[in-house]
Amino acid sequence: MASAPAKVILFGEHFVVYGEPAVVLAIDKRVYASARLREDESIYINSTELGTSGYFSGNYFRVERGGKEALAKLEPIRSAVEQVLALSKKKVGVSVEVHSSIPVAVGLGSSAAVATSTLAAVSRLLDLNLSKDEIFRLAYEAERSVHGTPSGIDPTISTYGGVLLFRRERGFAPLDAEADIPLVVGNTGVERSTGELVASVHRKREQYPSIMDWIIRAGGKTALKAVEALKKGDLSALGELMNINHALLCAIGVSHKSLEKLVHAARDAGAYGAKLTGGGGGGCMIALAHASKVDRVVEAIELAGGTAFIAKKTDEGVRIER
Amino acid sequence: MASAPAKVILFGEHFVVYGEPAVVLAIDKRVYASARLREDESIYINSTELGTSGYFSGNYFRVERGGKEALAKLEPIRSAVEQVLALSKKKVGVSVEVHSSIPVAVGLGSSAAVATSTLAAVSRLLDLNLSKDEIFRLAYEAERSVHGTPSGIDPTISTYGGVLLFRRERGFAPLDAEADIPLVVGNTGVERSTGELVASVHRKREQYPSIMDWIIRAGGKTALKAVEALKKGDLSALGELMNINHALLCAIGVSHKSLEKLVHAARDAGAYGAKLTGGGGGGCMIALAHASKVDRVVEAIELAGGTAFIAKKTDEGVRIER
Repeated sequence: MASAPAKVILFGEHFVVYGEPAVVLAIDKRVYASARLREDESIYINSTELGTSGYFSGNYFRVERGGKEALAKLEPIRSAVEQVLALSKKKVGVSVEVHSSIPVAVGLGSSAAVATSTLAAVSRLLDLNLSKDEIFRLAYEAERSVHGTPSGIDPTISTYGGVLLFRRERGFAPLDAEADIPLVVGNTGVERSTGELVASVHRKREQYPSIMDWIIRAGGKTALKAVEALKKGDLSALGELMNINHALLCAIGVSHKSLEKLVHAARDAGAYGAKLTGGGGGGCMIALAHASKVDRVVEAIELAGGTAFIAKKTDEGVRIER
Repeated sequence: MASAPAKVILFGEHFVVYGEPAVVLAIDKRVYASARLREDESIYINSTELGTSGYFSGNYFRVERGGKEALAKLEPIRSAVEQVLALSKKKVGVSVEVHSSIPVAVGLGSSAAVATSTLAAVSRLLDLNLSKDEIFRLAYEAERSVHGTPSGIDPTISTYGGVLLFRRERGFAPLDAEADIPLVVGNTGVERSTGELVASVHRKREQYPSIMDWIIRAGGKTALKAVEALKKGDLSALGELMNINHALLCAIGVSHKSLEKLVHAARDAGAYGAKLTGGGGGGCMIALAHASKVDRVVEAIELAGGTAFIAKKTDEGVRIER
């Protein structure tokens, strides 16, 4: 069994598309993947979180649970398993069980954590013992085959953990950060398409280039100031910068009524700051709060109609569990 | 009797302090001031809206209604009357009655409208017939004696009406605008100090100059884009720009829970856009809505806890009523 962490974007979503820096944090919510050898040569995958399971055998797929969507949901996991099988050159079958408490498709990097934990578990099972760099490379390739030209943020953070500064032109740099960053993650439960939101920002930039370019740069400066605050462990400044970042995301039109409700509830409950995280338009928000206040913030978010959990930074990337 | 209009800041509050343009609109809510000669040489002022009345006679003030705050409230009106008396060189007394439906001290320019309408009424009473330019100059001097170095926005718009573009270094330029700009003004009822809010923005700019300067410039660009939309009569674009402007005001920290509530209620009720107007931190917001939707927007704002009224652009500045 192997595990890998989920992530939140602390600063810079959307602005990162235009070359500005983003700050990404691995959180202590993990995906667990366990792998067993099979008697036959098929691949069996069971994902509790996706509510699907099924068998891949050559070009055939047999759904066990999850109906019509099962194939599309399990295909990326199959792809990860097959990459490792190809590397090992062994003619064996593998069963993979994936468990997780991370909500899927809400911008928390669940897919990448599934991919990296599966890659690690299967490679250990087949005595390959891939390095983190090798796992990252395979996970990145898998993401690229699904998403075209992704930023690589999700596979990177789920592989290496910690806090990362990302810039499109310069890649990743690990950041030193105060040990404990007490967050509350609130899920609006409102579905959205990150691709559509990215496209809407693009349209708005074409329509109002002079306005949007200044906002985007302000977003970049906010992320850089946040790096300083992280290094100092200044949670109060970090919260204020989150509020600024959130307002800039409102300005480019990617917030949503449901997010505003949770963000304001969290602030009213005493959070240092709160913002949407990820694509916006629904999905998740995060609040930074003093450890003594996280419970109150969770309660406030739930009262405002969201579902919430407490999360902290983790420095543990993908790892073998046993 | 003379009257003068209230105003709303459509775009650019706060950013205007840093040299960016502001767009200001006279609205069809007016202050009415009527003046009569008195037998004695005292000045009697009765202001329904301020809930005060009293007599000024030389260095003496006798309160009739309004208690301890009466003097401070009536002093600016007395000052306007005395300026006209000094110009006329007549040794007479004057009674002034001021009526208005404009809420006071919420950023709608009520004080300037009181000053300009009083100046016009008293000058007509004393056969001075001051020009608009002369009325403006006197009202501006009166504002300066109270506020130090004001922008001059309020006395300008209440004197000349219409829509004005204002820049600190370049002064005022009248703007051509679509005849009908259907607005709803919502009052949160939350008191705030514009001076304190301006100071808090100043502090934030000292703390985060790199972020704030980009936001301020984005605010300036938003106002300039709004000028184009006003010229075309493109209410939909104007609403979108109001939403952007509001988010930028959130980013610099001058919104307030009460404003957010009314702004979102107005948008949900179908407004093209909505934003705080004036200093923020409470006070008023404005929503731009299609004429067929203003009633619904009024209702939504009132349901959200505000008080609201419909307003339109007026080209009528200060004027003699009869």
